[in-house]
Amino acid sequence: MLTRRDFLERSGLGSLGLMGLGMIPEAPANAFALERTVTGKKVLILGGGLAGLCSAYELGKLGYQCTILEARPRVGGRVWTVRKGTTETEIGGTAQTCQYDQGLFFNAGAGRIPHTHALTLHYCRELGVKLVPFLNVNESAYLYMEGSGPLANRAIRQREFHNDLRGFTAELLAKVANQQSLDSAMTKDDVEQLIGFLRMEGDLSPDLLYKTTERRGFKTPQGAGDKPGEFSDAHRLLDYIRSGIFHPSLSNYGEYTLYQQPPMLQPPGGMDEIPKAFEKHLTGKILYGAEISEIRKTQPGVRVVYTDKKTGAKKELTGDYAICAIPLPVLRKMQSDFSPAVQRAADFVPYVNTGKIGLSFKRRFWEEDDYIYGGLSKTNMDINQIIYPSQDIMGKGGVLWGYYNFNEKAVKLGNMSLKEREALALEQGGKIHPQYKQEFASSFSLAWQKIQYNQGGWANWSTEARNRHYKALTQPDDDIYFAGEHVSYLTAWMAGALESARMVVGQLHKRVSQTASKQ
Amino acid sequence: MLTRRDFLERSGLGSLGLMGLGMIPEAPANAFALERTVTGKKVLILGGGLAGLCSAYELGKLGYQCTILEARPRVGGRVWTVRKGTTETEIGGTAQTCQYDQGLFFNAGAGRIPHTHALTLHYCRELGVKLVPFLNVNESAYLYMEGSGPLANRAIRQREFHNDLRGFTAELLAKVANQQSLDSAMTKDDVEQLIGFLRMEGDLSPDLLYKTTERRGFKTPQGAGDKPGEFSDAHRLLDYIRSGIFHPSLSNYGEYTLYQQPPMLQPPGGMDEIPKAFEKHLTGKILYGAEISEIRKTQPGVRVVYTDKKTGAKKELTGDYAICAIPLPVLRKMQSDFSPAVQRAADFVPYVNTGKIGLSFKRRFWEEDDYIYGGLSKTNMDINQIIYPSQDIMGKGGVLWGYYNFNEKAVKLGNMSLKEREALALEQGGKIHPQYKQEFASSFSLAWQKIQYNQGGWANWSTEARNRHYKALTQPDDDIYFAGEHVSYLTAWMAGALESARMVVGQLHKRVSQTASKQ
Repeated sequence: MLTRRDFLERSGLGSLGLMGLGMIPEAPANAFALERTVTGKKVLILGGGLAGLCSAYELGKLGYQCTILEARPRVGGRVWTVRKGTTETEIGGTAQTCQYDQGLFFNAGAGRIPHTHALTLHYCRELGVKLVPFLNVNESAYLYMEGSGPLANRAIRQREFHNDLRGFTAELLAKVANQQSLDSAMTKDDVEQLIGFLRMEGDLSPDLLYKTTERRGFKTPQGAGDKPGEFSDAHRLLDYIRSGIFHPSLSNYGEYTLYQQPPMLQPPGGMDEIPKAFEKHLTGKILYGAEISEIRKTQPGVRVVYTDKKTGAKKELTGDYAICAIPLPVLRKMQSDFSPAVQRAADFVPYVNTGKIGLSFKRRFWEEDDYIYGGLSKTNMDINQIIYPSQDIMGKGGVLWGYYNFNEKAVKLGNMSLKEREALALEQGGKIHPQYKQEFASSFSLAWQKIQYNQGGWANWSTEARNRHYKALTQPDDDIYFAGEHVSYLTAWMAGALESARMVVGQLHKRVSQTASKQ
Repeated sequence: MLTRRDFLERSGLGSLGLMGLGMIPEAPANAFALERTVTGKKVLILGGGLAGLCSAYELGKLGYQCTILEARPRVGGRVWTVRKGTTETEIGGTAQTCQYDQGLFFNAGAGRIPHTHALTLHYCRELGVKLVPFLNVNESAYLYMEGSGPLANRAIRQREFHNDLRGFTAELLAKVANQQSLDSAMTKDDVEQLIGFLRMEGDLSPDLLYKTTERRGFKTPQGAGDKPGEFSDAHRLLDYIRSGIFHPSLSNYGEYTLYQQPPMLQPPGGMDEIPKAFEKHLTGKILYGAEISEIRKTQPGVRVVYTDKKTGAKKELTGDYAICAIPLPVLRKMQSDFSPAVQRAADFVPYVNTGKIGLSFKRRFWEEDDYIYGGLSKTNMDINQIIYPSQDIMGKGGVLWGYYNFNEKAVKLGNMSLKEREALALEQGGKIHPQYKQEFASSFSLAWQKIQYNQGGWANWSTEARNRHYKALTQPDDDIYFAGEHVSYLTAWMAGALESARMVVGQLHKRVSQTASKQ
């Protein structure tokens, strides 16, 4: 049992002074209104992902002359939407060309926008990118635990798990609380209120038992006339436990996480609407197909050597400054004059292995047969999850994320051939959706660690790596600044790239403005 | 403590035979393919709400001659979208005309579609009504408890409440479970697994304490460079308890409810897209402005007396059958030859008092300042809740449901003048959103109990009323059938109206087909 002291500390009574601090509203992001304009300063921006695009866009407003060097024929980097005709060849892999029907798409990288990412939302607003809901939570989507136990190897609606566990845990706690064994800090009335909460939270009976609940779905549906509907039976707590349903890959920690809490948002026609909106403002400032091989300090200034992929010619460009928005796994293979600290960061910061497959189907059976509209099913199989489209509801055909996995699972699937990945996604996903076999049309898969100009999902900062290598990237290395999601605490998110772009633009502009003041 | 027997019964070990019944997938709704067609049979359909429209649509497919008598100049009944120029005068009220900006709308009645309502989704699919997400859950929306206590009279983000309570309850239960006091039915390993679940569910520390969690939002946000973000402080459990935050109107039992679980759906341009889609198939079959005053049995057949509201002329129509899809509070005032049982049902079935106000604002401050995109804020004030639009995100201006309340609160506000309702909505809502005052444009409010051809929100069947009066409405009264949400267990939902329509069409067609076979 808790002592009074425990309880006070635990429940926060010991930290009265901090009360209410959580109430500080997060400031919405505004236009980036730095003072003064600058003429004649040339800035090379290495990489046309979101960090590079945003840097060029904001520096352009301030009067800088920016040139983005982008190895690909497109901007956006990991903000990449695959459609009919999209081609990609992974490192050491075979070429694939997307065969989806016209109008279908697959966000191979960034796929959903947290509603708390003020800066991402700000740029969508400023650039006129329309946003619509991305459904990240769906109580009708499935859990599928491969293994042993009575609830294993079958698809369970998430609402069953969520409501049964709320019921069982509320019951267990209410039982204990009722005996007033919690703590003497709680008065009898406090305990009664807590029990009232538990009763509603778990949908307990008046005698505080969890029997079952309408919330987990009806066994026979409600209808007109003589169809009152019959409640479904709760699964047994021990069956959940002994079927491994508490496995982290099946629980809802994703949607509890701040950045995955509902609602989430997306552009209706593909996430690349965002980089394309930046691109419109950067006409003439982007060198496409410019594959950088050397980054040199010219004391002062920067010189960059690159290959023009159209002609194969080696070329170079110089600037007063550079913003390097290249992912570290790519950067580490370039020749450069970086300081040892920066070079070590490039060499040693780990990146996440992650993969996705976009499975296109002729029919939206997940909607028509399973009434699943958006959201995601979770499993401990290699595919990890299946994500259903939130757009084009009731449309003809659609694309699922047939897997989206990380770490060992992503390495395993990444090492497979395209055909093997497809077969695995169909076989494992087919256990949840038997309709896969009949309705499948085509796939497009990728292992981000094998995508040429990324070679990883996102920076996977451990505390140790953060302590050792992070700082070097957050400040200029002579005239070279670093941007990208890896130079933020919002790794993996577009917001990280955008925040980092604003940071370096701010740093650079302050320096240039101060130098100008002194002259 | 639980005994072993308690535990077994409670956790379902005692009901092995029923296990898995919850797994029966609910069948998706299909087209209504009844056999045989019928010619020459005339059916009068009383009321052009969803039940009447669907009945006429399905009977039309089978060859019946249907005429819908609708008192209003529009179809849809309580499926009603208010836009610029919409007019309404409540019983005993003053006329109001909607002044919203072009493009804005307010679903004054049905506003959201559960993803489990197969029949509603079926008709949207069959009739080509596009659906998009309706955001019913938003962790950034507010709770506002008016009263006393440290957390009262201030807006708290829902994520704070949800994550703090998950944390506190998981901690309390983990503490107890750890002492293996739960039950001997659980092995040590079972208990460990349960504790593992609680630890993840509540985001507990390794020593099983809830301190705070990233899930409830940051005190200082995460960003680029040296901005790791600082966790916000949990509120204290006792502060929640003693501020009344467990009040049912603030808790998330709405979104736990089966029919409000995410995702929910809506047509993008207003809920009346659904009745309008039916209407397109019923050209020439609808008498608008036909106010029924008498419903007579002609043994066999039916005769209906109505006033043509354009001319004021009394007219009548006869049919072989009638489907009466008129709400009971309206029906009870008509002259009729109904059986005593039907007349008693019309007289005594209670309907819900409910009201809404659509507040239009010049700026979407809830998005721009508060990053609230859809979802709903909850309060114990009269306004009950504020619902934010899921459509036109980042658009210019928007309409909130400034209140949507029931029972006593709805009676109170319904008895106010339009101006008083508006003032109250602005004053109370302004406590949650101080921007109300500056950004307000115009309002449109309604008390459904005072809307002429409805006089109530929906049938509010008590168990007693259901036992006493329901059956009479689910079978024909001679040649008159009854349809509408009140003839279903899906009261208040469009699905109830549609289910009832299919029921009466099935009953009627079976009878007509059998009679025809005998002849």
